[in-house]
Amino acid sequence: MKQYANERIAALCAYVPGEQPRDMQYIKLNTNESPFPPSPRVAERISGEEAKLNLYPDPACTELVAAAAASIGVKPENLIFTNGSDELLNFAFLAFCDAGRGIAFPDITYGLYAVLCEMYGIPYLKIPVGRDFSINPQDFCGVGRNVVIANPNAPTGLCLPVSDIEMIVRCNPGRVVIVDEAYVAFGGESCVGLVRKYDNLLVARTFSKSHSLAGARLGMGIGSPELIGYLNKVKYSFNPYSINRLTMLAGLAAFEDENYYTENCKKIITTRERVKAELRALGFSVTDSKANFLFARSDKIGGRELYEKLRRRGVLVRHFDAPGISDYNRITIGSESQMEAFLAALLEIIN
Amino acid sequence: MKQYANERIAALCAYVPGEQPRDMQYIKLNTNESPFPPSPRVAERISGEEAKLNLYPDPACTELVAAAAASIGVKPENLIFTNGSDELLNFAFLAFCDAGRGIAFPDITYGLYAVLCEMYGIPYLKIPVGRDFSINPQDFCGVGRNVVIANPNAPTGLCLPVSDIEMIVRCNPGRVVIVDEAYVAFGGESCVGLVRKYDNLLVARTFSKSHSLAGARLGMGIGSPELIGYLNKVKYSFNPYSINRLTMLAGLAAFEDENYYTENCKKIITTRERVKAELRALGFSVTDSKANFLFARSDKIGGRELYEKLRRRGVLVRHFDAPGISDYNRITIGSESQMEAFLAALLEIIN
Repeated sequence: MKQYANERIAALCAYVPGEQPRDMQYIKLNTNESPFPPSPRVAERISGEEAKLNLYPDPACTELVAAAAASIGVKPENLIFTNGSDELLNFAFLAFCDAGRGIAFPDITYGLYAVLCEMYGIPYLKIPVGRDFSINPQDFCGVGRNVVIANPNAPTGLCLPVSDIEMIVRCNPGRVVIVDEAYVAFGGESCVGLVRKYDNLLVARTFSKSHSLAGARLGMGIGSPELIGYLNKVKYSFNPYSINRLTMLAGLAAFEDENYYTENCKKIITTRERVKAELRALGFSVTDSKANFLFARSDKIGGRELYEKLRRRGVLVRHFDAPGISDYNRITIGSESQMEAFLAALLEIIN
Repeated sequence: MKQYANERIAALCAYVPGEQPRDMQYIKLNTNESPFPPSPRVAERISGEEAKLNLYPDPACTELVAAAAASIGVKPENLIFTNGSDELLNFAFLAFCDAGRGIAFPDITYGLYAVLCEMYGIPYLKIPVGRDFSINPQDFCGVGRNVVIANPNAPTGLCLPVSDIEMIVRCNPGRVVIVDEAYVAFGGESCVGLVRKYDNLLVARTFSKSHSLAGARLGMGIGSPELIGYLNKVKYSFNPYSINRLTMLAGLAAFEDENYYTENCKKIITTRERVKAELRALGFSVTDSKANFLFARSDKIGGRELYEKLRRRGVLVRHFDAPGISDYNRITIGSESQMEAFLAALLEIIN
């Protein structure tokens, strides 16, 4: 029955996104969504645009690029927008890697990287993190291939300082270093300022987490004009109109209401620190996450068991059945009341 | 300066979408958009959803799949939705082709097919169409590779009957035959009924043309559960959430107002036949297009020259500077008044 797919796709274990069960209402703390709706500016911007949906969107995303350039302090030619940052990662792997140009990433990180390598036939090197999940930047020098690092890393939430990222970028001349800053707005340090200095750095951003637009799908790449030029080549060859008209306006609205999102991120950080302290008080080991999630384990209960017991109580968290992290669960920071419900369910389970 | 891209991407000539100039208001007859806005149901459906954009969309597109299954008369496992049909074509080329599994298509057809082959390193065979641009289905038998055929074909608008498509599907067992029905609603004959009979047939559809949703980006694949299963593997590995929440609802609304779109298609067909007759009366050779565009040339004026002169008069059509078709222009069928303006400009130019 595998006659139609090529060998790579036939053998591929597809990426598994966080579950979206429809059997009941869950408190969803499993896909790192924001608990806050997007700014009301989004609905204002979109209103009326429905009548223009018969027309293709602007493939160059001109206004969005201009707004981002002004906000970040880079030039339009440093920017590309994509249908979520997953699409950006695809374009980057397609453009900069191939069977002869491999890539390295930490052995505990966003699962999509390895899946993309399997899908595109790219050799990859998983570099072990420390027992405390820390990434040693020295390990990424001299690996003779491109590099992708999520910073903060997922699912650990651990963050490298910009000086470490700069070291990795600098020690890999002629190789592309992709820094996935999906979670940077929650206390991490962005390396976007390095883009002016290094032409081999690509920073990936998403509007799904800090900007409450997971449902609109918007990602952004920031890099040298050379890297962005290649990514645009792929984008135009793949799907020139990958950003639809409504998402384009939602993204514009996001740039127009930065304060709203900054305040939301502050709230999430406050909640995270409180929940982190409570989990530690309950005897959990919790990483020092700078993301909108916590990564925690307890000697009292296995990771899978805790996940299942929370699920039965209507609370979804993310459990990864993978080596080194199967004792853990990743818990998205939701609203205060969602986290109260999570903690109440947790107390019931472990007491 | 090509150090960062791999060889394929460095050498790639990206697909060039129809121009979207911003210097003035044009009568846009160059990207085969519908002149009609989408059904008012689209705005009704979308309204209020903006507040939920912080949550990821349903990656399985459950409701959309159910609506399509009911509308088309297939099972949910026969269906996949993508971010426009270009994304579907990408997924199909990635899943079913590779360096050892080539693909064949007519030498005059949608330009993206060759670009995808170049991007993914897929060997391709361009099969010559006749001098009248007709496709001989026999030519697609025994080619020892997958096949993709746009039906109606672009940019000619010529359509094969389902019996010819069935012959191509039947004579290629073990190979995937992709039939791109982007333009089928304007008088072509759909082969979707064959999906139940042949497990190697994949039908590609778009909501961009007949359903006035070019700006929302929605494509659909219809095929055997085996083919759809592989495409879903690629989709989940590429970007599980490639359909955003608003587009999902716009698509649902489209299924709820089929009559509206059927009536629009009828109007476009009426206009097309009238403009076709007028062009022929003016001495143009015009193919017997069953799509929402015409493909025309005149002995009186070169294709490029006509394109440029129309452009200066504020009318955009599509000129392809490619062997065999550079004398022609592809003219989207717009509204009656847009076509009046086009014909007036044309008369000015050729008289």
